[in-house]
Amino acid sequence: MTRSLPPAVDPARLTEVLDGRWAHVRRDAREHLHDPDLLPAPGEDMAAARARVTRMAAKLAASGQVTLGFPKAYGGADDAGGSVTAIEMLASTDLSVMVKAGVQWGLFGGAVHALGTERHHAAYLPGIASFALPGCFAMTETGHGSDVQQLRTTCTYDPATQTFDLHTPHEAARKDYIGNAAQDGRMAVVFAQLVTRGERHGVHAWLVPIRDERGDPLPGVTIGDDGAKAGLPGVDNGRLSFDHVPVPREMLLDRYGSVAPDGSYTSPIPNATRRFFTMLGTLVRGRVSVGGAASAATRVALDIAVRYGETRRQFTAPGADREVLLNDYRAHRRRLLPALAATYAYAFAQEELVGAMHDVLGADVVDEDAQRELESRAAGLKAAQTWHATRTIQACREACGGAGYLQENRLPRLRADTDVFTTFEGDNTVLLQLVAKGLLTGYREEFGSLEGWGRVGFVADLVRETVLERTAARGLIARLVDAVPGRDDDVPLRSRGWQLRALEDRERHLLEGAVRRLRRNAATPGMAPFDVFDDVQDHVLRTAQAHVDRVVLEAFVAGIVRTADPGARALLERVCDLFALTTIEADRAWFLEHGRLTPARSKALTATVNALLGELRPHMVTLVDAFALPEDWRGAAIVREEPGRQEAMHAHDAATSDGLLRRGTATSLEVPPAQ
Amino acid sequence: MTRSLPPAVDPARLTEVLDGRWAHVRRDAREHLHDPDLLPAPGEDMAAARARVTRMAAKLAASGQVTLGFPKAYGGADDAGGSVTAIEMLASTDLSVMVKAGVQWGLFGGAVHALGTERHHAAYLPGIASFALPGCFAMTETGHGSDVQQLRTTCTYDPATQTFDLHTPHEAARKDYIGNAAQDGRMAVVFAQLVTRGERHGVHAWLVPIRDERGDPLPGVTIGDDGAKAGLPGVDNGRLSFDHVPVPREMLLDRYGSVAPDGSYTSPIPNATRRFFTMLGTLVRGRVSVGGAASAATRVALDIAVRYGETRRQFTAPGADREVLLNDYRAHRRRLLPALAATYAYAFAQEELVGAMHDVLGADVVDEDAQRELESRAAGLKAAQTWHATRTIQACREACGGAGYLQENRLPRLRADTDVFTTFEGDNTVLLQLVAKGLLTGYREEFGSLEGWGRVGFVADLVRETVLERTAARGLIARLVDAVPGRDDDVPLRSRGWQLRALEDRERHLLEGAVRRLRRNAATPGMAPFDVFDDVQDHVLRTAQAHVDRVVLEAFVAGIVRTADPGARALLERVCDLFALTTIEADRAWFLEHGRLTPARSKALTATVNALLGELRPHMVTLVDAFALPEDWRGAAIVREEPGRQEAMHAHDAATSDGLLRRGTATSLEVPPAQ
Repeated sequence: MTRSLPPAVDPARLTEVLDGRWAHVRRDAREHLHDPDLLPAPGEDMAAARARVTRMAAKLAASGQVTLGFPKAYGGADDAGGSVTAIEMLASTDLSVMVKAGVQWGLFGGAVHALGTERHHAAYLPGIASFALPGCFAMTETGHGSDVQQLRTTCTYDPATQTFDLHTPHEAARKDYIGNAAQDGRMAVVFAQLVTRGERHGVHAWLVPIRDERGDPLPGVTIGDDGAKAGLPGVDNGRLSFDHVPVPREMLLDRYGSVAPDGSYTSPIPNATRRFFTMLGTLVRGRVSVGGAASAATRVALDIAVRYGETRRQFTAPGADREVLLNDYRAHRRRLLPALAATYAYAFAQEELVGAMHDVLGADVVDEDAQRELESRAAGLKAAQTWHATRTIQACREACGGAGYLQENRLPRLRADTDVFTTFEGDNTVLLQLVAKGLLTGYREEFGSLEGWGRVGFVADLVRETVLERTAARGLIARLVDAVPGRDDDVPLRSRGWQLRALEDRERHLLEGAVRRLRRNAATPGMAPFDVFDDVQDHVLRTAQAHVDRVVLEAFVAGIVRTADPGARALLERVCDLFALTTIEADRAWFLEHGRLTPARSKALTATVNALLGELRPHMVTLVDAFALPEDWRGAAIVREEPGRQEAMHAHDAATSDGLLRRGTATSLEVPPAQ
Repeated sequence: MTRSLPPAVDPARLTEVLDGRWAHVRRDAREHLHDPDLLPAPGEDMAAARARVTRMAAKLAASGQVTLGFPKAYGGADDAGGSVTAIEMLASTDLSVMVKAGVQWGLFGGAVHALGTERHHAAYLPGIASFALPGCFAMTETGHGSDVQQLRTTCTYDPATQTFDLHTPHEAARKDYIGNAAQDGRMAVVFAQLVTRGERHGVHAWLVPIRDERGDPLPGVTIGDDGAKAGLPGVDNGRLSFDHVPVPREMLLDRYGSVAPDGSYTSPIPNATRRFFTMLGTLVRGRVSVGGAASAATRVALDIAVRYGETRRQFTAPGADREVLLNDYRAHRRRLLPALAATYAYAFAQEELVGAMHDVLGADVVDEDAQRELESRAAGLKAAQTWHATRTIQACREACGGAGYLQENRLPRLRADTDVFTTFEGDNTVLLQLVAKGLLTGYREEFGSLEGWGRVGFVADLVRETVLERTAARGLIARLVDAVPGRDDDVPLRSRGWQLRALEDRERHLLEGAVRRLRRNAATPGMAPFDVFDDVQDHVLRTAQAHVDRVVLEAFVAGIVRTADPGARALLERVCDLFALTTIEADRAWFLEHGRLTPARSKALTATVNALLGELRPHMVTLVDAFALPEDWRGAAIVREEPGRQEAMHAHDAATSDGLLRRGTATSLEVPPAQ
């Protein structure tokens, strides 16, 4: 693993590996996705942003890329993986454009496609594909986001009129944060509790018109505007309330449950919980897209910050006649390089996830285990990638100083636009509990009765054995791990086998500890079922995080296996070392507490990370070049490639020949007051 | 320390302690600082924000609060501490207003006051005080922010014309990010290299007109607009370039250096470096203000998030007929309570800093040691409080989910406005090196020649002994620490003495380690002087951080000493435990690596923190009530106190009597796709 690095690596060789299975979709976007409406003018206001993004959405419809996931019969390619990849590429431009597209073709179109039946497809998919019929995905309510099954909106069937009565019982039950609602939406897929013959059958979805041809709200429909947000100014998020709105019987998206004219309810999935599971499961694409989009935005931010650090100089080194480049400071590399390494790791993990999603959704027979596994993986990687985006884009902003605070340098918009990703598509904390739930189900029997925990949502009804099942490059990883001798202390920190085993071992130990504590609490007389879990919540969340870390490292290893070019491969090995070791370093307290690291080895770990920061210094720009961002997608003034501009901005910094100026650096840590 | 908590504590008792020495200024602001222009209308665009903030600045001038720091002779009160406190209070409203005021009266007015002489005061302070003369503080250049002594702008004296020639030699030397420049500024205090008789005398400041009465740029002055930023839309940041602009001799702010008509240079401080030090030292108020403002904004964010967590419910607990309050989840308290505890700690540390600043600046004779100590303290607390603000406001945003992403709920603006605080007034990383420099100077001789390190800026020319000098409540802290028995393992984790000793011990050990490594590197043949320091940079930064943590804990202890009310005192003791233990927990890897914590005790530490999160649960709202924010400063829709509104939003969530809805929670971790 520690073979020495070539002086230079061709970034194109890295791009090939990163592009992966849907490389053709990525290349197509890089070649054809160029439009003045793709990026905002600095200082663009909300009205202008909404207008631009709506214009751009119409152009995207014409491009065909955004409907790759649609059925061939309706102008698509039945290519779920391609559709998610296309959305990810959009996320390198303006995230308002990406979210608008995600709402129209991913969520709205995806729901009609997945939950509706032939008559819905024939009637509406063409208009949805062409953007002639802009629509909303109306699931979240002001009072219920994460807990979808508790939605308060009701849709009650009346055999007499053969219509449903769609109703918002109170303010907290209004649909909120709904994209396409405030301005463009003509229809909405509305999720509500289905009631017929006085019986509830759980959450279902209806296709409901909300505006007339003139764009005015239809009778009984109240539409509000969520107004300005932290970011995503081009997305018209709004609120929808329904005052006993009549909905024709056939507008129920009835693939998983239908109501006969006489009001009798039938479903191919009798069990209500499993039915709900299955319905939402078909919508996993949205969550996969958000994780990928977060990483795409992170790559743009790193591209900007690394390039800026390669031109901006500050403080004169003794004896030197030029000031020092920011990237030459260890503290600066500490900020950027581990984040860059993790971004590579997530790119490989996301690529694998998209492939798994494509295969599961495309399978002729539904494999429920594969479906659950996919949902758990999607949840974990969404949480990990969106939090990584928030942290990393922030670090990039700070690494660019005052310049990073200006909209003309793109970073503020990237930061603000992606910020909501950590809480939409499911709050990250809730998603990690979903991951933990998947890991714990294997142990379900050991807890005794499931009643309580089912209710606080930690344990599913379906028993699986996903625990520590290796997720990628199984054979190789097994060999690497088994090759590690027993006594850790003798194993080089750069041994991939040791790194893999360390993350595997942490996950197993955390999981077994959580099971032990849950069992003990469950057996404690008088302990409220809620406390049984709340008492272990932080432990459970750490377990899920450890699982995601392991999955991501395994994906990185699998990515290296796919790398043909020896130089690119050697570089990726080094980047993988940095990811694995900074991941362990960040949690080294745990490894020390549990005797997995001696104090001496823990200190050596930090020293090794610092050494890697030095070895990777010459390759920082190569690593962002490999992201292959077209210049017009980058859109940051500080790194714009105008002939000679960088020279004009920095060449004169060499003029420090004056003695007094030099002596000055003795106090060069004095800094300017606020501007 | 562990006496049991009273069921309820009167927040007013806590407010008294937090208000501290300038309580009268705080009370005055809470009583009189109410104006529709203080907070933005949601979605307000940049032009509207600039107009509003300019209007508000004029009203503030009339209020007298913003000029407390001005000389009595010019309508002020010679009250430096009061002026910083007034700025901090403004920061609870709109940070654009706070920064605009900070630029006009703190930086621009402060520079004329501190660097100018009587004729400058008489001619300009009245107009500055009344805002009739809006001005800029033009120090930072595009190419030089942190390294002020390397500024490239020159100001060259010509005896023939008795004027200076102010010139911007190249694009990277333009003044950038300058508040009041893009729109309102009529004059600017411009920092440049003073050259006379062919000799350079280092950075000085001139008072330079930039716009005429009609608001047009004066000949030779080019004014640019930095345009939209991540936040602070109401502040007109811009760029200034000077093309051989003639500046009359008497416009040099000549308190520390003057040029005679014949061009001869004289200064009360012959040593150029010390002169530079002294000049910048007089401007420390700006940095102190930014740290205080960051904490004020953090308190507003916590106030919103804690109140929201007290009304928003999600997921039904087994057997319960209402859903669970967010604040009842341990993971939610883990997010908010340690941040709340640290916010209390910083409030006490800032209060102490402001007092020290007031006394140092007000002293008849300049105490250079006290001055350096003040600058180091101001740098460390600015870095700590601004990073804390960035992290905490982000956590509050996420804790409010989708609602936290809407401008109507204030958090996005707080987040974006404060974001620049981590890099202006000095990049935080550079500031921590300044702190480390102060700690290292005591060891200077041990390094041998200073040449190199002076140049990379780690070591000052002045030797001091500040190492581990206790900063507050010295007597009490000494008693607490000395009372701790030798063997740590027997000492309760809640022992304040043990907590103090742990942070003291970490700082000392880190400092000695840094000195050892620097000495070793310096003795390594052929090691470049730059590498001597870069190799230790991460260690040095940790040392500075450890120093700040210790200073802050000592300030908290001193604050508790000032607390008369027994209930308030007991609560603060508990909050201080949480701050101290989460601070140690965050770095427990270090304590484990260095044998300061056994694995068992480290795990016990986490258990104790979790126990504190439970004990403090009933007091969360009390702790934010103590911030005593007037309702109109809070300005967040989700916590607006309209009669019955919270009930309307949440009462119906009790309606879960339906069997199927309950059963639903088995899968309640399913979450909605992106909106």
